[in-house]
Amino acid sequence: MTVLAEKSPDMDTELLALREALERRLDSLLPAGGERDRVRAAMREGTLTPGKRMRPLLLLLAACDLGCDKSHPGLIDLACAVEMIHAASLIIDDIPCMDNALLRRGRATIHRQFGEDVAVLAAVALLSSAFGTVAAAEGLSGNCRAQAVAELSAAVGLQGLVQGQFQDLKEGGACRSSEAIATTNDLKTSMLFDATIQMAALAADAPPVVRQKLRGFAQDLGQAFQLLDDLADSHSGSGKDLNQDAGKSTLVALLGAEEVHRRLQNHLQSADRHFAFVCHQGLATRHFMHRWFNQQLATLR
Amino acid sequence: MTVLAEKSPDMDTELLALREALERRLDSLLPAGGERDRVRAAMREGTLTPGKRMRPLLLLLAACDLGCDKSHPGLIDLACAVEMIHAASLIIDDIPCMDNALLRRGRATIHRQFGEDVAVLAAVALLSSAFGTVAAAEGLSGNCRAQAVAELSAAVGLQGLVQGQFQDLKEGGACRSSEAIATTNDLKTSMLFDATIQMAALAADAPPVVRQKLRGFAQDLGQAFQLLDDLADSHSGSGKDLNQDAGKSTLVALLGAEEVHRRLQNHLQSADRHFAFVCHQGLATRHFMHRWFNQQLATLR
Repeated sequence: MTVLAEKSPDMDTELLALREALERRLDSLLPAGGERDRVRAAMREGTLTPGKRMRPLLLLLAACDLGCDKSHPGLIDLACAVEMIHAASLIIDDIPCMDNALLRRGRATIHRQFGEDVAVLAAVALLSSAFGTVAAAEGLSGNCRAQAVAELSAAVGLQGLVQGQFQDLKEGGACRSSEAIATTNDLKTSMLFDATIQMAALAADAPPVVRQKLRGFAQDLGQAFQLLDDLADSHSGSGKDLNQDAGKSTLVALLGAEEVHRRLQNHLQSADRHFAFVCHQGLATRHFMHRWFNQQLATLR
Repeated sequence: MTVLAEKSPDMDTELLALREALERRLDSLLPAGGERDRVRAAMREGTLTPGKRMRPLLLLLAACDLGCDKSHPGLIDLACAVEMIHAASLIIDDIPCMDNALLRRGRATIHRQFGEDVAVLAAVALLSSAFGTVAAAEGLSGNCRAQAVAELSAAVGLQGLVQGQFQDLKEGGACRSSEAIATTNDLKTSMLFDATIQMAALAADAPPVVRQKLRGFAQDLGQAFQLLDDLADSHSGSGKDLNQDAGKSTLVALLGAEEVHRRLQNHLQSADRHFAFVCHQGLATRHFMHRWFNQQLATLR
């Protein structure tokens, strides 16, 4: 595991280049409008404000590890679509009737900057743009684009983000078992990771058996990610409201930070095994995953 | 024109059968959940409550007029997707930070029945389901499904429903020219009619030149529809809040009801010519359109 997590100048350079390409493409998919074009401005603010870009980077790296050509013209659009869905989900989670959050990525939340009406419309337009971007991605077969839309749709809807947010709102305050919390985490996080990885596999033309195995990778990764999010909640520097989860039943509250750290590492190791099992060509995804978590965990010490 | 609008027992029977098939398919695409499954219940309430079903019926009739087989397995799913998008847009238009409406289709609006958080999540899930339903529609090529997703996406986003709702919110109270009002109406209504007709044409494998001509049909139909909506606003029996547009600059306020009636008829005639120009096979779409408007206008007398 240590080898995979080591710092490599090549990888730093590659990640920087991928990140820059992502920012450029997001900027061109969401062009600035006139001064009165508030919905467009809110979409840009919600998406282009510097973020970790974990999902789109993961999509790009996984697709290449799975054999997709790095210069595939549609790949970056799939990655941007995932980031738009993520941005839309954050805008919606933050509005007054949901978490009523004040800060996101260190800035006032979208509804505080633009009003709640514009925030909701921006989220709807981002969701819609994401589906449209996937449907029109260059260099992919119609079947591949349609399957990618179906994957994204599953990640957003009643089996994904929407249901996760609903369970969190309605049951977060109640006393829940660690299994119930894991299920909510799965809906809130793993489903979008799953769509991310499935779209990478579709772009790489991976066979169904590989795509099925990759679902296990996404599920472990999503669980690890949500555990990290729970750990980070009580620390400053996340750019979000502190203690947003205060009063909600999280795994940190239920099991303690040490046990959550242990489970997080277990999920990471399991994710690593899943990916290694189906992909012998590239190590970029596994490198990226381990380094990313190590960096994030280091900020919590 | 009179011949087209005449009552035909065959058409009544056909419409009834199509409507029943639509209701059944919507019901199975949005299955009921458990008692605690409030988002699912709100999606069903927002979609299955009896409505006019104009868009999905239009899609089914236009596709068949354009040469698509009536028994095409994916056709009804495209029609249901359009109705889901429409239902989602109504839920969002009604929430407190938008129109803050109390009634819709004669019942309490979704946020009043289920809470604003559930209403927003139900709308997001309906949008997402619509895209997923199109992406997975049976018997259509991948390319056709992907193009249909792109059409729906254009109808929802910044060139469609979202921008129309934003303009209505921000500029509805100000004094606008009839051209500015027509542009907003175009965004709010014609774009979804356009996607509806384009999906019908895609299912019927219509050539690009026909699809282009059909955009003119959808635009006239959308304008006529919005004019009817403006006329209906001041009448009881619409099932919506009365005078929801009071204080907004509508064409009725600007031009008077008589001129609006005249313009509505001009748009209908223009729509009729557009459709007749590209479609010599069937008359069902044109019959349906004229009869539908005649029936609605009769309720305003």
